[in-house]
Amino acid sequence: MNLHDLPTPAALLDETRLLHNIQRMQQRMNGLGVRLRPHVKTAKSVPVARLQAQAGAHGITVSTLKEAEVFFDAGFNDILYAVCITAQKLKQARALRERGCRLTVLVDSLAAAQSLASEHHDGHVFDAMIEVDTDGHRAGIEPDNPLLLQVGRSLHDGGARLLGVMTHAGASYDCRTPEALQAMAEQERSRCVQAAQKLRATGLACPQVSVGSTPTALSAQQLHGVTEVRAGVYVFQDLVMHGVGVCSTDEIALSVLCTVIGHQLEKGWVLVDAGWMAMSRDRGTQAQAVDFGYGAVCDETGTLIDGLVMSSANQEHGILSWRNGPIETPVNVQFPVGTRLRVLPNHACATAAQFPAYAVLDAAGSVQEWPRFYGW
Amino acid sequence: MNLHDLPTPAALLDETRLLHNIQRMQQRMNGLGVRLRPHVKTAKSVPVARLQAQAGAHGITVSTLKEAEVFFDAGFNDILYAVCITAQKLKQARALRERGCRLTVLVDSLAAAQSLASEHHDGHVFDAMIEVDTDGHRAGIEPDNPLLLQVGRSLHDGGARLLGVMTHAGASYDCRTPEALQAMAEQERSRCVQAAQKLRATGLACPQVSVGSTPTALSAQQLHGVTEVRAGVYVFQDLVMHGVGVCSTDEIALSVLCTVIGHQLEKGWVLVDAGWMAMSRDRGTQAQAVDFGYGAVCDETGTLIDGLVMSSANQEHGILSWRNGPIETPVNVQFPVGTRLRVLPNHACATAAQFPAYAVLDAAGSVQEWPRFYGW
Repeated sequence: MNLHDLPTPAALLDETRLLHNIQRMQQRMNGLGVRLRPHVKTAKSVPVARLQAQAGAHGITVSTLKEAEVFFDAGFNDILYAVCITAQKLKQARALRERGCRLTVLVDSLAAAQSLASEHHDGHVFDAMIEVDTDGHRAGIEPDNPLLLQVGRSLHDGGARLLGVMTHAGASYDCRTPEALQAMAEQERSRCVQAAQKLRATGLACPQVSVGSTPTALSAQQLHGVTEVRAGVYVFQDLVMHGVGVCSTDEIALSVLCTVIGHQLEKGWVLVDAGWMAMSRDRGTQAQAVDFGYGAVCDETGTLIDGLVMSSANQEHGILSWRNGPIETPVNVQFPVGTRLRVLPNHACATAAQFPAYAVLDAAGSVQEWPRFYGW
Repeated sequence: MNLHDLPTPAALLDETRLLHNIQRMQQRMNGLGVRLRPHVKTAKSVPVARLQAQAGAHGITVSTLKEAEVFFDAGFNDILYAVCITAQKLKQARALRERGCRLTVLVDSLAAAQSLASEHHDGHVFDAMIEVDTDGHRAGIEPDNPLLLQVGRSLHDGGARLLGVMTHAGASYDCRTPEALQAMAEQERSRCVQAAQKLRATGLACPQVSVGSTPTALSAQQLHGVTEVRAGVYVFQDLVMHGVGVCSTDEIALSVLCTVIGHQLEKGWVLVDAGWMAMSRDRGTQAQAVDFGYGAVCDETGTLIDGLVMSSANQEHGILSWRNGPIETPVNVQFPVGTRLRVLPNHACATAAQFPAYAVLDAAGSVQEWPRFYGW
């Protein structure tokens, strides 16, 4: 199949940009002397993760146990489940481990640590990390909170294996300058290393120090004391990452291919067959310097049409308009019914999740389908 | 399976509420003397549509050709594809019709009308409706725009069958009082009937007049001249419909079942294993009188916990907090790790789309799985 025959809407993946993004991050991590453990929640696609592994990644990060199961069945063995576990999920986690998966689970509470105790699991020894809060953004224990050592001790006393500490500086998404990003990366690094040192000072082994987010991974100046970096969205990039300042629009590998289905001439609207069901409801650029609505519009070949955005969206209708108001040429002359366009997404993780498969466009212009999965 | 054994997150569907919503709308349409053509884009689930048909619905409305194919294969024959068609999609539409599906397509431009001409399709006669713009909200032709008659004539001259006119008063979502809703329903009715009359006055047959949105369908006082009403989200209801004023929170049939996975005590945060991947990114209550964040929280039995909302969401993390600030009892005492909760969604169409299946809870407390599909 070629680009022009693809039914719309389609999740179009530009393979050249994808490979560039994978190489860019891997080379940066190699240069910083740390392992890269990609977060596969963005693409949820085995062929994408295989490209990351071929480029040099070590292991993967997942956001659901379903991801762990799918990727383990596809041959990925070293898997970090980076959402705090609860007792109800341990049966499923243990089943994976007993099949040979090196699944590591995450805790940030005494309740979760205690639920891992081997006496509750026929002597099974879980591998666990403790989530550290380095930016006040979400989950985790602050490095100087006494709870950190209590959780570490509880894991040890219960017979679980404490592999290390991990953090995610989600607050990096709110940074807007290289200086702020570098400072956030250093904060993420130093506080996570500090947590590891506190645990080690009490005699607990804590070999791994895992940090990461796409903005901090692409901004860190040094990662002393860190053993691995996790990042997800870098593999596709998106308008939010562009707004943060860690990619150009030319590096965004995912777009939604769509077709013009109508116009409202007086309003200067172009209607397309991709609405929020295709783009997702993510409005991540709303709080950034440039608000792209539901996405930035490119022509069918991928060249950005500067100023044209998806300003509004219903389930299967997108409304495109010029950000600075209508221009002289009527929109039905510029973009007749049947015109095909690409829309760059605000948030690649959210947009990709709306599609059962990617239409992967290679440098020669041919298209093949790569599967992706969803659900829990 | 019972409620307490369900893995989380899950799309929980309360069958009692579902049946109530179906009956409520069907009885209203029966009373108004019009047929109901449910929009199946909300549930995308054959068992749900069968319940609607059993209650008295005539035909279905779809938002994608994939929906048309799935529902036709499941025995639904009378299908309106309510998004304007383009030439590229006609091969797929015709294939369905040649298999025996009474598929009606929609146009609002000369280009689309001309693409239906039977000379382009080996003499195949398409059934078509013209989309009318009754509220300036999205697509369609205004009743007094000369283009309306040009499109009608073009369909006729090209050999397509003009079945009628249809409109969707999407602007009803912005109404906030019963008076405004009733006025919007009357505007939707009268302008769509006016369009039909203009077409008929030129000698074109235009038997069907199709109107609808959940808010106007639940508010219309009379529907003279209308032959059928379309509505979708009424089947589940949601917080946006509650904000519009056409349902109570006790009528919302869909919720996301989730589990508490942690806390941030000083911030009064409860972290759960349902983030925006489960809830969707829809923030539809943001512009309403009560902003529920990413959803309103209920206990595991479905009783609303007044004031507790999902205030923030990451991909697989939801942050619950009290809308009016932390309360005295620490959140880890109120909602210990492992506590199960239900979260009512802003927009049922968007939340449901994130799940491969519904966990349907019947009045006796047992749960069965109903499939849903996605994609194009």
